[in-house]
Formats: sequence, structure tokens, C-alpha cells
Amino acid sequence: MEKDLAVKTRTGVIDCDVHHAVPSMAALYPYLSERWRDYVKEHNIKSLEPNYYPRGNPLSARPGSEPSPGALPGSDLGLLQRQVLEPWSVQYAILHCLYGVQMIHNEDLAAQLAQAVNDWQVAEWLEKDSRLRASIVVPSQNPLRAAEEIHRVGKHPGFVQVLLLVRSEKPYGKRYYWPIYEAAEQYGLTVGIHAGGVTGYPIMPVGWPSHYIEDYVSHAQAFQSQLISLVSEGVFVKFPRLRVVMMESGFTWVPSLMWRFDKNWKGLRREIPWVDRLPSEVMRDHIRFTLQPLDEPPKPEILLKVIEQMGSDEMLLFSSDYPHWHYDEREEALPAGLPVDLERKILFENARAVYRF
Amino acid sequence: MEKDLAVKTRTGVIDCDVHHAVPSMAALYPYLSERWRDYVKEHNIKSLEPNYYPRGNPLSARPGSEPSPGALPGSDLGLLQRQVLEPWSVQYAILHCLYGVQMIHNEDLAAQLAQAVNDWQVAEWLEKDSRLRASIVVPSQNPLRAAEEIHRVGKHPGFVQVLLLVRSEKPYGKRYYWPIYEAAEQYGLTVGIHAGGVTGYPIMPVGWPSHYIEDYVSHAQAFQSQLISLVSEGVFVKFPRLRVVMMESGFTWVPSLMWRFDKNWKGLRREIPWVDRLPSEVMRDHIRFTLQPLDEPPKPEILLKVIEQMGSDEMLLFSSDYPHWHYDEREEALPAGLPVDLERKILFENARAVYRF
Repeated sequence: MEKDLAVKTRTGVIDCDVHHAVPSMAALYPYLSERWRDYVKEHNIKSLEPNYYPRGNPLSARPGSEPSPGALPGSDLGLLQRQVLEPWSVQYAILHCLYGVQMIHNEDLAAQLAQAVNDWQVAEWLEKDSRLRASIVVPSQNPLRAAEEIHRVGKHPGFVQVLLLVRSEKPYGKRYYWPIYEAAEQYGLTVGIHAGGVTGYPIMPVGWPSHYIEDYVSHAQAFQSQLISLVSEGVFVKFPRLRVVMMESGFTWVPSLMWRFDKNWKGLRREIPWVDRLPSEVMRDHIRFTLQPLDEPPKPEILLKVIEQMGSDEMLLFSSDYPHWHYDEREEALPAGLPVDLERKILFENARAVYRF
Repeated sequence: MEKDLAVKTRTGVIDCDVHHAVPSMAALYPYLSERWRDYVKEHNIKSLEPNYYPRGNPLSARPGSEPSPGALPGSDLGLLQRQVLEPWSVQYAILHCLYGVQMIHNEDLAAQLAQAVNDWQVAEWLEKDSRLRASIVVPSQNPLRAAEEIHRVGKHPGFVQVLLLVRSEKPYGKRYYWPIYEAAEQYGLTVGIHAGGVTGYPIMPVGWPSHYIEDYVSHAQAFQSQLISLVSEGVFVKFPRLRVVMMESGFTWVPSLMWRFDKNWKGLRREIPWVDRLPSEVMRDHIRFTLQPLDEPPKPEILLKVIEQMGSDEMLLFSSDYPHWHYDEREEALPAGLPVDLERKILFENARAVYRF
């Protein structure tokens, strides 16, 4: 399979979801002003590493992805190069730093930490390997401050996307968040919505579940909500060049949502007159999904049917989700049985059309 | 088509979702004790009719379903007989009274009103037409009181189901609700979860949306949450004879949820060891869906694929959703292009297996 891929992808795979990790809060000290360095120390904030991927859980990180015993998977460039960039012949990999900057209630601290993380990304990753790209971490608690951060670093060619987390205080379609989209569109950046985020509301619209598995399975619904909101509020009418990439969302739920959304748009579109065409068409033009982790049907031919039902072969972007991958062997990141054309689209063509490479 | 159906369904259609309406609060006075009749009058509670189906909206009720100008659709038995029972050759129709009993914060009042609604259902509907069946309205605000109401009327042969609304204070899998399931199982009643309910939490797990269309499209997610919760908490292990019928939920989202749930169960089942087989198998054994309103794909053959992907032809139950129907012509309640065997299962065989007829 490796050889096959090398032939198919002369120009290299584009991996649209790779996770690097801030090894410790101390790693950010050089990028914080004295005032905020003191603040973080005085408040004994040792890490903002979220626990979306419980470290003891075998699904959370692939075996061997800890650079040294106890060190965070994804915190070492050399290991990431050896485990992702080289074996996959990666042309570009888009890094997403999941660090709990978005969960802090102090907006000033969040803004400073976002700056520090972005400067750390530039100095320690983007400038060290030309295959790397990254998403801008923003203090989404305050969309105006988030837009400022996009203006501060948006011109850097290493940044291709703005990172939001799917669990939010309000649905992302709301006008409140539009300054983020305006800034992203200005710099030709996509907006990436990744699993995770604040937990102000239960992940279930019917209250708090008891178990991690319920939370995890329900994550797809948070993505569905964001999608409904983005389309209904008219974000893509206001920002016609904007593309949103949903990451770790799964995508086999997309056809069903398109059907339900289209049907009800037909009945209720007077309420949102700015949405002047079928929601499924807006989705096909503006929404993309990374591949892993994949809510995979039992048979490859069913997966093909689902992709066919999405009505577009341009919506899926290859991702390894390193180091969180759920599959057994590296090669399984790409589902078996896809036609060659579709494989090529997923492996790099679709990403090239969406990101500024 | 009508003739076709008459041939196909010699024993008559079973319509699993028909709505009758309490015409006014005064209609319940004969079924309330003096104390509660006074209470309702003194507090000027004129109606608990919910606004799920805004009356001015053409989608909310089929034309001609108002018995007289201004009267509530579904409030007149004769009209319901002429518009549903007769044209569909209905053998049985299951009535669901959507009256906001479940939204009242005073548990005593809720319990009294539930009693009154149930006694009204028996006297004014069930005893007047032997084709009618009904769901027991319960004060789900207090599951112990809800169980008491099931014990009070559960033996009446007209009641075949306990009615819950999909939006709840807690996910329905939680132990808190188990007294309801214990009582339902004892009387051989199904539990029907219908669209609507309390709005304590936003319908989106990411906050409050702005528009009715967002709320409406998102309803499917509330159903998904309840399903995840019911299976994960082990309700069907504790109550192995219990069946849950989801009403007005749509169902094209079911295969995707099965895949996602099965996959994550494989990775995380140690957390819920009582779930000792694939969630999709539990769903196929215990969950049913009414047909309308249908989140219908653009082509009939896709709908057939979706039903095939559910892995069972026993999960769907015919419903007209009278008087809320979304389709243009009555006959369209049953999608075109279904194989005859499947049509028969949907029209009555599946319902007969689930309900006590």
C-alpha cells in the first residue's frame, strides 16, 4: 500500500489534522510578557492540556507516540516527522494545537496565551520544517480579540486556518462571531472547527449524560448544530469566500442532515430569506470534513454510497489525526476500496483547493 | 393508490401517530377535583396547548383540519374519523395528546392535569371509537408520580403506550426515570418519545439558536441523545421487554448513529460493561420509529438503501402525523417505491408486534 500511495500521490499527501502539543507551560514562558509569565507562575497554572483524550486510554494516542516516558504525544518534532511526515510522504501537514486557551474565563489571559501559543508554533514548528502548516489559536471567548490575533499573525504563510472548538458558548453562526470570519476571509484562511471545547452546556440537548462514551458519540451532534447555525444565520452569504473545515466530526451523518435541512428550508425559508438556495448546496460549497476518526460503516461499499449521497467528492480531506488515531495500522487511515480518483481527491486535491498552498 | 392499499392491508392500517387536542381547559373541568378546578380558574390557566406547531404556519396543520374557525385541529372526533380513520381504512390509531402538562413546574398540578387528560382521553375518545388507542400522559417532572399514573390507568385496554417528550431535564437513560420504565413494562406498554418538551436546555448543545428552523432541524439530535442515553445506561438490560418508539424523530440518521455508536462501544465498552453487545443490535431489538414527518432523501432508492443500512425492516411504523402532516396529498404519507413486503410491515405488521393489539 505504501508503494501504491507513493505512485498515486507524486506530489505528496496533505494531512489536514495532526496534533502537536505544548510540552509544558514552561515552554510558553519565552513567548509571554513578564507580566503574564508572572501571572501564570503565581497562579500555578501548570498546563492547559485538555483531557479530551484521557491519557490512560489506549484510544487516546498511538503506541510509541510518547517522545519519552511521561512526555506528551505530539510534543516532539523529530518523532512527529518520523511517525507522520515521512511514512505518509506528507507534502503538507496542518497542525492543531489543542490547548485549553478557549476555556479560560479571563479574556486577557486567554488572549495572551493564544499569542504565546501562536508565536511558539511559528518558532518551534513552522520555521523548523517547511512541510508544516498550522491553525491560529484564538481567544474565541471574545471574537473581537480573536480577530485581532488573526490580524497579528494572519499574514504568516505558515498559518492556513483559524482554529475554533466545536463546543462553544453560542452557536457559531451568530453575528457575535462574525468578526472572526471577516478576518479569516481577509487573509484567505479557512475556519477549522475541531472536536472539544467549553462545557458550559451539556453535549446533549436533553441534559448531562453519565459516561464518556455518551459524550464522545454525541460530539457529532455539536458539529451538526454548528453547521445548521452557520448556514441558517447566513455566514456564507456575508462571507462568500469562507470555507469551514470540520475536524474529527465524522461525516456519515451529513446526507441525513442535508435531507432534513433541505426539507425544512423548503417549508420555513421565509424565516431566513438570505439563504436563497438549498442548505445542502451551501454545505457542498463551503463545508469540508477531515477523514479521521471515521464513523465507518461495516462495509466499504456503504461508505462509498454515503459519499455519493453527500453529492460531492470534494468535501473530504485526508487526516491521520496523529497521535490520536483510532485505527490499528497506519495505512487504515485511508478506507479501503475507494476509487482511485476519489482517493486522490481525498489525499491532496481537495485540500489544495481549500487551503492556500 | 387507495385501492392498492385496501388490497394490501386487508386487516387495516395501524396509524401510530395521530394527534387529538384538548379543545380548551374547560373541557378538562369535569375530570378535575374541585380544588384543582378552582386552582386552574383562579390562576387563569386557559390552555396548555404548546406552540410546537405555530398555528399561522401552513406546515402546522393540514388545510381543513380545523373543526370550525378558530377551533383546534384534532379537537373533534367526527372530523378525525372522516379525515384519518376512514380514508386510510385504519384498524387502530394511536392518539397522542400534546398538552403542556410536562412543562409545569408545580408537580402536583402536573400530576392532576395528567390524570384529567387521561380520564378525558378514556371518556371522550377511547370509549367512543374502538379503533382508537392512546398514550398515557404522565407528569414526567416526577418519575415516581408518573409511575403512579401508569399504575392508575395502565390496565385500561385503550392505553398502549406511555408518552414522554423528547426534550427533557435529564437524558432518559438515567436511573431517575427508571420507575417509569418499570411500570410501563409491567403493563406491557411501550414508551413513546415524541418531539417537543421542556426547553430548559438549548436544543443545540452549543447554545441557543436564533430561528425556528434551526430548532426544528435540531430536534433529530435530541432524539439521538435520548437513544444514546437509553442504550448506554442499560435501560434495556434492566427492562428487557421494554420497547421505545420515537415519534416525529425522522430516521435517516439512524445508520450513521449506529456506526458511530458501535465503533466507540468497541473502544470504550469497559465503561458500560452492562452493554454486552453492539449498540446497533440493542437498537434493532428495542427502538422503533414512526414514519412521518420523514427526512426523506431526494430519491426513493436512497430511502430503501437507508432502511437496508438500518439492518432491520421491523423498525418503522406507519404514521400520518395527523393533523400536522408535511406532505401534500394524504397518500404521500407512505413513501413511493417500497417493496410490498416492507410496505406491509410498515403499515401494520411492525406495529402489531410492538403494541398490545
